[in-house]
Amino acid sequence: MYSFTAPKSKGQMLATELKIRRNKIRVLMQQKKIDAAIITCNVNLLYTCGQIVSGYLYLSVDGADHLFIKRPNNLMGESIHPIRKVEQIKTFLDQNNIPTPQSVMLEAEELPYTEYMRIAALFPTADIVNGTPLIHEARSIKTPIEIGLFQEAAAAHVRAYQQIPSIYHRGMTDRAFSIEIEHLMRLEGSLGIFRIFGRSMEIFMGSVLTGDNATQPSPYDFALGGQGADPSLPVGFNGSKLKEGQTVMVDIGGNFNGYICDMSRVFSIGKIKEEAYAAHQVCLAVQDKIAALAKPGAICQELYHTAIEMVKKSGFTAYFMGMEQQAKFIGHGIGLEINESPVIAPRITTELQPGMVFALEPKIVLPQIGPVGIENSWVVTNTGVEKLTHCEESILPL
Amino acid sequence: MYSFTAPKSKGQMLATELKIRRNKIRVLMQQKKIDAAIITCNVNLLYTCGQIVSGYLYLSVDGADHLFIKRPNNLMGESIHPIRKVEQIKTFLDQNNIPTPQSVMLEAEELPYTEYMRIAALFPTADIVNGTPLIHEARSIKTPIEIGLFQEAAAAHVRAYQQIPSIYHRGMTDRAFSIEIEHLMRLEGSLGIFRIFGRSMEIFMGSVLTGDNATQPSPYDFALGGQGADPSLPVGFNGSKLKEGQTVMVDIGGNFNGYICDMSRVFSIGKIKEEAYAAHQVCLAVQDKIAALAKPGAICQELYHTAIEMVKKSGFTAYFMGMEQQAKFIGHGIGLEINESPVIAPRITTELQPGMVFALEPKIVLPQIGPVGIENSWVVTNTGVEKLTHCEESILPL
Repeated sequence: MYSFTAPKSKGQMLATELKIRRNKIRVLMQQKKIDAAIITCNVNLLYTCGQIVSGYLYLSVDGADHLFIKRPNNLMGESIHPIRKVEQIKTFLDQNNIPTPQSVMLEAEELPYTEYMRIAALFPTADIVNGTPLIHEARSIKTPIEIGLFQEAAAAHVRAYQQIPSIYHRGMTDRAFSIEIEHLMRLEGSLGIFRIFGRSMEIFMGSVLTGDNATQPSPYDFALGGQGADPSLPVGFNGSKLKEGQTVMVDIGGNFNGYICDMSRVFSIGKIKEEAYAAHQVCLAVQDKIAALAKPGAICQELYHTAIEMVKKSGFTAYFMGMEQQAKFIGHGIGLEINESPVIAPRITTELQPGMVFALEPKIVLPQIGPVGIENSWVVTNTGVEKLTHCEESILPL
Repeated sequence: MYSFTAPKSKGQMLATELKIRRNKIRVLMQQKKIDAAIITCNVNLLYTCGQIVSGYLYLSVDGADHLFIKRPNNLMGESIHPIRKVEQIKTFLDQNNIPTPQSVMLEAEELPYTEYMRIAALFPTADIVNGTPLIHEARSIKTPIEIGLFQEAAAAHVRAYQQIPSIYHRGMTDRAFSIEIEHLMRLEGSLGIFRIFGRSMEIFMGSVLTGDNATQPSPYDFALGGQGADPSLPVGFNGSKLKEGQTVMVDIGGNFNGYICDMSRVFSIGKIKEEAYAAHQVCLAVQDKIAALAKPGAICQELYHTAIEMVKKSGFTAYFMGMEQQAKFIGHGIGLEINESPVIAPRITTELQPGMVFALEPKIVLPQIGPVGIENSWVVTNTGVEKLTHCEESILPL
């Protein structure tokens, strides 16, 4: 059982916490014989420095780290050095007789090509290594403080979702419904911003899908798509009325402190067909089954296949995780970004480990009705998993 | 004088419009002797294809283009080809006897290093060229349809801002005030999402700054900073009360159709010092002066220096564009992203051209009072500039 005290203030990131996080990266660097990392992408700086700066963390495998900052101009500290351009890092290392690393890790899956080349050019004799998978691996095992932040986020997320019925009125569109839920989330403290790994996925605060719009494929690899309100953002609501006999699924990201909690709930408008309740029940049963099997050592692809087998027996395979275009996962790690490790999907051989946090989202889309199913956020404990998002899971009438 | 009819439906992007846009890129490719471009970043696909897909536009200098799509799976057309992985582009070119290009342009400032290398590997004998500046140049001159979309966005932006006084109540925090303005923007049709070029800048929908929080530097290169509500998003409001004698500046992005209109307005709480009105007047005078000088052929850095000279004479130099950390620009191009070309800043020798759209934002931050100044969006016409954002510009009492 995890039992954590969240830090007194969200801004108060303890030096020891940052040391733990950096050491997780260092251990992996040691295994791969990497001498130094240059970390500059926002989420990775947030992870290793407790705040976002425009700058570079020079993380050395032996622990002598330096933070080089372009902006803001008001941060000071023993190992903090103001710079104007990245080349000054090399000048600093040379002037301080810090040995040139033989192997340097850069965020190769995050840095744009031109920027990567510019940083790599500082170390012409070094092997340049892709650090993204390694940092992701470190980030995938949350510390107690990170799990505490997730618990805080989950509580706020639940408080907002519990107020959803209060903002509904008859004749509303999915768009109006979404706007009022976003507003509830903001009032509960949501930071709004929705961080996603990779250059291609985009969404505003999350998605609200009703009726057949939930069957619409999107360019983005979310569990469900939706046509969206405009070709410039082809995902989520499309202005459909919330109609009698249909369902509406709310899946708005819960970023209250940097950690993005993930939770979906389904509401019904008027009387809906029995089939919807049956399909919803299948999703809840999948959730229960996976939650029972998920524990340290459980293998992601096996969890996925177990879920798929259950859905197959239920007869809902053609509607599982989308219709016209089906998502090929049932869960995903969450953290500072919405799509972290582990991914519960075919061919993913990752073993669950204590401290991993993931969203599990078995969902079924029924033509003419809409989406049903569930999504909760879970933390892997020493013996199993614990739910973070405690909120009514049945289809709630609006 | 521009006079445009916006497209009947936002989704209805005409083939001729896309042809115009692609041809603008082709002309630049011809000049640089580039045979083909592979375009895959969201805003560039939106620009060239009228929609975002997960896929790749193979744009050939001779006009035989092909769109290769991974997602969504429901798009069809003569030159649309479903693929699973980028390598299938090369297979397609080979199978259709399309000559291998000798020079290929990739989005080198946008594509992550690993992805760039994977695409570049398809053309081992070709010169691989950075296409980002060239696409930016094409995008910087808006078509009449794009300007029409800006006019639509500006009108909606103004409608939302005009309602700001109605949501204010005494004792409100900057955060509560921001949330209600965001809500107004969403109700007027804002898509919410705020696209920024580059990996390092982030913001939710925009910023609301009051009192001394407006003096706080941020890691991001916006005109003003603000501490932010959380270390994970260090920009904008920080929970300060809107206090008697202070100002509050609203600078929320106006993305109603993909094109991000930019506008800031200042409000006063109770009675504020005369100094604030004087400083505001300086900003309005700078705006008037620059608007009078801005026309085709005007050079960005000269406009900037003219503004700086005016501010110097006014005595507000130490407070112009921030205090502890001052932004080094007074305006920036806008389009599908908030930070496009031209940038009105020192050392920028870009000449204004008809069809460019930019935000001009002279702002002054006064200690203990807060920010004053103005921001409007402007389009360059054949003879000068026209304001897009028509909305009261004085400091409005709340």
